[in-house]
Amino acid sequence: MIESLIKNERAELTQDAKSSAAVVLSTRLRLARNLAEIPFPGRASKSQRSDILTKCAQNIQDLKQMKSGAIFKVSELTELEKQVLVERHLISRELCENKEGSAVLIDRAQTCSIMVNEEDHLRIQFLKAGFNLKSIWKKIDAFDTELEKSLNFAFSSEFGFLTACPTNLGTGLRASVMMHLPGLVISNQMERVIRAVNQLGITVRGLFGEGSDATGHVFQISNQQTLGESEAEIIDRLSNVLKATIDHEINARFKYLELNRASLLDQIGRAYGILKNAHEISSNEAMNLLSFMRLAVDFNLLPDEYRTIVDRLFIECQPGHIQYAAQVGIEPEARDITRADKLREEFNNMPSLDFDNIGKIA
Amino acid sequence: MIESLIKNERAELTQDAKSSAAVVLSTRLRLARNLAEIPFPGRASKSQRSDILTKCAQNIQDLKQMKSGAIFKVSELTELEKQVLVERHLISRELCENKEGSAVLIDRAQTCSIMVNEEDHLRIQFLKAGFNLKSIWKKIDAFDTELEKSLNFAFSSEFGFLTACPTNLGTGLRASVMMHLPGLVISNQMERVIRAVNQLGITVRGLFGEGSDATGHVFQISNQQTLGESEAEIIDRLSNVLKATIDHEINARFKYLELNRASLLDQIGRAYGILKNAHEISSNEAMNLLSFMRLAVDFNLLPDEYRTIVDRLFIECQPGHIQYAAQVGIEPEARDITRADKLREEFNNMPSLDFDNIGKIA
Repeated sequence: MIESLIKNERAELTQDAKSSAAVVLSTRLRLARNLAEIPFPGRASKSQRSDILTKCAQNIQDLKQMKSGAIFKVSELTELEKQVLVERHLISRELCENKEGSAVLIDRAQTCSIMVNEEDHLRIQFLKAGFNLKSIWKKIDAFDTELEKSLNFAFSSEFGFLTACPTNLGTGLRASVMMHLPGLVISNQMERVIRAVNQLGITVRGLFGEGSDATGHVFQISNQQTLGESEAEIIDRLSNVLKATIDHEINARFKYLELNRASLLDQIGRAYGILKNAHEISSNEAMNLLSFMRLAVDFNLLPDEYRTIVDRLFIECQPGHIQYAAQVGIEPEARDITRADKLREEFNNMPSLDFDNIGKIA
Repeated sequence: MIESLIKNERAELTQDAKSSAAVVLSTRLRLARNLAEIPFPGRASKSQRSDILTKCAQNIQDLKQMKSGAIFKVSELTELEKQVLVERHLISRELCENKEGSAVLIDRAQTCSIMVNEEDHLRIQFLKAGFNLKSIWKKIDAFDTELEKSLNFAFSSEFGFLTACPTNLGTGLRASVMMHLPGLVISNQMERVIRAVNQLGITVRGLFGEGSDATGHVFQISNQQTLGESEAEIIDRLSNVLKATIDHEINARFKYLELNRASLLDQIGRAYGILKNAHEISSNEAMNLLSFMRLAVDFNLLPDEYRTIVDRLFIECQPGHIQYAAQVGIEPEARDITRADKLREEFNNMPSLDFDNIGKIA
């Protein structure tokens, strides 16, 4: 069951990067919801947690979006399977630690995942490749409205939706966009951007949330506040910050190309050469090299269709995915060899970098 | 005149690496000789130095080997031309600093160079690609004997040939072999080898003599003593040490391949990928990457004929050669770009590394 999910050739994040998706890798929205009159998961008894799952799962699976989806109980997943789901951003690390009644429901296209008994009873997440805040908001809002018809969510007319942690109180909405910002990083502007963005109530984190590094020049940018603003206001404010960040990033790239042409071509060329010829690559290094390949596509050094391949490799080169594909338990060192083998194979089918074509279109 | 020398397509060191030349890049022998009754160059007056040059040049140019050779006065060479000759090991850095009467005579094939008014009146050098101590000794000995017929060398029956510095007294012979020792370097055995070799009266230095780094895993190994032994004994002892060193190096390579296969393939693969795709490469980095390409040829990852190309690039990627080829004065930074352009071009004509064929013959 999970095998078909992992190997699904139509999974959103591994397949669907549009050519327009320079800078923005993916958009995720999540709503925190809790059933009224039942303790939050951290306070609930085992049987209560179990009841929560039964009740929620039934009602969720009745919705059209989830009809052909799957449900996985955390207690039935192996460590490796959990890791793969985390790497796909379909579940959180926190969910992995809970057992009784903790589960995730995932739709066929992997655009929607609903965690049950994580920090809240329900964490409804919709995700999509590219920059899609408004369209995803429409979908998740409709889904939530639909679900509310059968489930009675804890809601206070003063505070809005009640959540286990006060930081999610109100809308329960976290909108989060995964951005690829190599231009700002290599021109040393990222710190300044983070400070400016923070002052607007927006959080910047690494690829896997709080405390994680910005490996591969990838940053998660999301709203800090959930209270005191409507969902539309939250999304509007985030949208504006993201649009400004995209502009900064594009400017930084072209400025860097103008001032440090050789150095930029050098970094891209070396990344390509190493991906095509190395025999041991760590997950971190792979992300950083792939980042330059995404930049190469953005700069027209590689045909547009390779952006999808690079984005897929971003996910497939994560430790869990490498381990899962190997089918047998392998040591971290062997993982680096398997990863390099995979990358060499993929890159040997890629055309040479077309440096004459650099930056011809923005 | 010097242009045709630099661009000579039959120059020994840039063209003649034999397929048997794994480990040993080239062999050089030099004899220090001084005219009797005339002060050493450091003590001679300008007019004496000038007379020395006139007298020596005439007699040297009369010898068959030098008939179609060229003579360059140091005072008439540009800084760049001197640097190119140093990089080809045809003159020493010391010669460049002397002016009055200092010159070099070089034969057509660049196998023989005779410096006049360096530290001694004459420094006769014969060099050849590959491991050729004995055959070169025969040639330089015959040349010296021939020259002695017309020039009266300072000789003491007690000390042998007299030289400006006592470290050259006696035979005046320095036999020096340029060795490529990546196996010993990457397996961290080089320090031990240097200590052992030193105890046998043999000196180990970097690519450009005393105090220079072993860039490109290249080491100059030469006799320390010139006094108290015959030339044949000196060459025999050095030969034995070199043969043992070659064995150590070959063993180190196969041992490393056995124990660290992925790491070795990784280092070779990355070097290949970078040489083929980088846009800025310093001279030092180029040497180190090319070293792995020579190793790739030795391990059958590249066809044998590419050893000559790699050896040529070892020379042509030196700063002076890059600058000279550019025809115009360029800054060090631009040199790194020109070097990378050259390497990309050369490597784009190379076949892919054939990893399936590794180490099939020793």
